[in-house]
Amino acid sequence: MARVVVDVRLKSEILDPQGRAVQGALGRLGLNGVTNVRQGKQFVIDIDGELDAAATEKLHEIAGNLLSNPVIEDYELSVEQA
Amino acid sequence: MARVVVDVRLKSEILDPQGRAVQGALGRLGLNGVTNVRQGKQFVIDIDGELDAAATEKLHEIAGNLLSNPVIEDYELSVEQA
Repeated sequence: MARVVVDVRLKSEILDPQGRAVQGALGRLGLNGVTNVRQGKQFVIDIDGELDAAATEKLHEIAGNLLSNPVIEDYELSVEQA
Repeated sequence: MARVVVDVRLKSEILDPQGRAVQGALGRLGLNGVTNVRQGKQFVIDIDGELDAAATEKLHEIAGNLLSNPVIEDYELSVEQA
């Protein structure tokens, strides 16, 4: 079994109002020195069997075009074979 | 500088309709063998200076009670000192 984790984050030049709100809240809660907070999405995909090259390519295509919006978001894909 | 990443995921016994929808879509897009998909949130928190024990404890408190809903979600906190 393979576990694929896709992290989707707003590109750094895109404003992140959710992250900004969390940053403000952390300060009010007494956590000092927070310089930046970004909020993103995470997809954990379990796949039966080994992940071959074709499936990995397909996953990158899906992660880059469907799970993330390539205009404003970047994705990071990591594979854990188990 | 320290970078703290908090991953928030629904507990495994909680239904995840978003993840289920993504799972269905992956199958239709030609990715076979997907057994499970969970969708979660991710917070990337940049903190100035070293992260001491008190700040780490505060972060766990915040991650467990505010960034996640402890009734239905689990969180995972990882620290990268840089």
